[in-house]
Amino acid sequence: MAYKSTERRTLVSNVGFPTHGPTLREVGEQATIDAIVGASPSPLNGDDAAVLESHTPNSRAVVTTDMLVEGQHFRFSTTTPALLGRKAIVQNFADIEAMGARPVAALLALSAPPDTPLAVVSELARGIHLELERYSSELVGGDITSGNQLTIAITAIGSLGGSLPPLRLSQARPGQRVIAHGKIGYSAAGFALLESGREIPERLADIVHAHRCPQLTPGRGVVARAAGATAMTDNSDGLLHDLGVIARASNVGINISRAAVAPSDQLREAGEFLGVDPWDWVLNGGEDHTLLGTIDGDAPVGYRSIGTVTRKVGVEIDGVAHTARHEWEPFS
Amino acid sequence: MAYKSTERRTLVSNVGFPTHGPTLREVGEQATIDAIVGASPSPLNGDDAAVLESHTPNSRAVVTTDMLVEGQHFRFSTTTPALLGRKAIVQNFADIEAMGARPVAALLALSAPPDTPLAVVSELARGIHLELERYSSELVGGDITSGNQLTIAITAIGSLGGSLPPLRLSQARPGQRVIAHGKIGYSAAGFALLESGREIPERLADIVHAHRCPQLTPGRGVVARAAGATAMTDNSDGLLHDLGVIARASNVGINISRAAVAPSDQLREAGEFLGVDPWDWVLNGGEDHTLLGTIDGDAPVGYRSIGTVTRKVGVEIDGVAHTARHEWEPFS
Repeated sequence: MAYKSTERRTLVSNVGFPTHGPTLREVGEQATIDAIVGASPSPLNGDDAAVLESHTPNSRAVVTTDMLVEGQHFRFSTTTPALLGRKAIVQNFADIEAMGARPVAALLALSAPPDTPLAVVSELARGIHLELERYSSELVGGDITSGNQLTIAITAIGSLGGSLPPLRLSQARPGQRVIAHGKIGYSAAGFALLESGREIPERLADIVHAHRCPQLTPGRGVVARAAGATAMTDNSDGLLHDLGVIARASNVGINISRAAVAPSDQLREAGEFLGVDPWDWVLNGGEDHTLLGTIDGDAPVGYRSIGTVTRKVGVEIDGVAHTARHEWEPFS
Repeated sequence: MAYKSTERRTLVSNVGFPTHGPTLREVGEQATIDAIVGASPSPLNGDDAAVLESHTPNSRAVVTTDMLVEGQHFRFSTTTPALLGRKAIVQNFADIEAMGARPVAALLALSAPPDTPLAVVSELARGIHLELERYSSELVGGDITSGNQLTIAITAIGSLGGSLPPLRLSQARPGQRVIAHGKIGYSAAGFALLESGREIPERLADIVHAHRCPQLTPGRGVVARAAGATAMTDNSDGLLHDLGVIARASNVGINISRAAVAPSDQLREAGEFLGVDPWDWVLNGGEDHTLLGTIDGDAPVGYRSIGTVTRKVGVEIDGVAHTARHEWEPFS
């Protein structure tokens, strides 16, 4: 999922990046660092590197990184720096949760044009902090520099306690239940609403928000692992695509229940509003960062059952084979 | 230290980025990922996040990140992608070593213009791998996307074993010895040689190489911590600046021995060649990533003594106060 090069105006109010106030060039590097640290403080920050204390004996570190580039992954006209900061944390922490681990810390590497208002950076850091707080987690370090495009690389660090294995793409087993935590198709629908350039009715605002800032409940990955889940990923590239990744890695089939993933009334309404089929958002929309896993037995708290693991290969819906729509190619 | 916006030709042969072969746009995202993973393989790579096994019980994770931007931190005309990859690892791993920890893994987040030759990316990953191998370390994950400027964010993850505290900027104590591991002033001298645009004599090639790819001996941080060092940093921004950071954080003074840091014959020769004073490289040049620490007792193996910690405040050379030259401002 990415913004196309054509800029379109959005009529949803209260968005956009600040365009006034002192710039990074005017305040300099130190004041920029101070603004980030002020908005997202941590006692672990400030040395050459951050030392993370283990909260459980022999816990293993789990690490992942994602880079977001202005014009490619976000646009000044359709989100705010604070929501961008929150989304950047959610998408990285979802990868940690998808291993069954607990997110504990994040790093921020940022390049920005010198004429970027300082408020953009401090608001970005405030959004990062808001999301980190939901996880009792901290921004423990980072790096800032100048560049032509606002570019944000977040690294998430998680902690995998105990001796159970992590939740692997390759560990789905025939007979298991397929489970999901979080909305499916909302981010793609929100993107489509913003892209339409139309005035968006208030009743569809939740969908737009789900695109700007997908929401997960902290700790769902740990819960799934404790309850006996074996495989997990998050819905980054689309339900068919991401379940296909698990199916291929595990050499199994996945049969999705059509009824279990059917578009909600809200998604249907958005589909009618735009004159498109909401099923495409559900099956091929990504960036919801919904947790998708497989488990023996019942769905744990916070999860719903959306299908079963089979001995076939590939992904089906109610027994009919489906292929993911060709995914987004960043270099095209 | 950064490249100025004016491009200058360099006459040192065998440098520069490949400008031919298939581009990222031509091969696409998956082939680009395959090229990176092929050049720097790891069994830990390939899931939503990488799980790092602890090699010692109750070891703590240590994390840091640095971002390098084309035109700002490196130029196609004065280095190679492989050397850039090595340097990116060295500068991050030096931060891990400076905590007294052992570097164990790295993540790479990369944005690149679609017309970047694939060879640039695979050579970058090869350089990363070469340097990681020196540390028995691996590239365990990453992210690639497109952007206007080649931008590289490396995250380094280290392991701090045992119960000794990490080496903190704030833990220098009066009466301690100041120790150093690695060259001082070479990177700045190499940068000045490249910036001069002059044909560089073969006998000064080591200095240019020290700029393109600073070298550290793996494990020196762990050795210093085991030997009783309490404070450490690396020479990123210049000897006076970085020792000043320790002095301020620890509320002590540092008295550098002029004889111990005097420019080598090679640095003097480079100074004569360019008609500049090599002392400025030694005192204010950064990016050597020399480890600089404080310790009670003798310098451990691999370190030399370069001064003492005093009760005064600030940095002196043979008892005379010195202030760091105003450092580089990225947003100017």
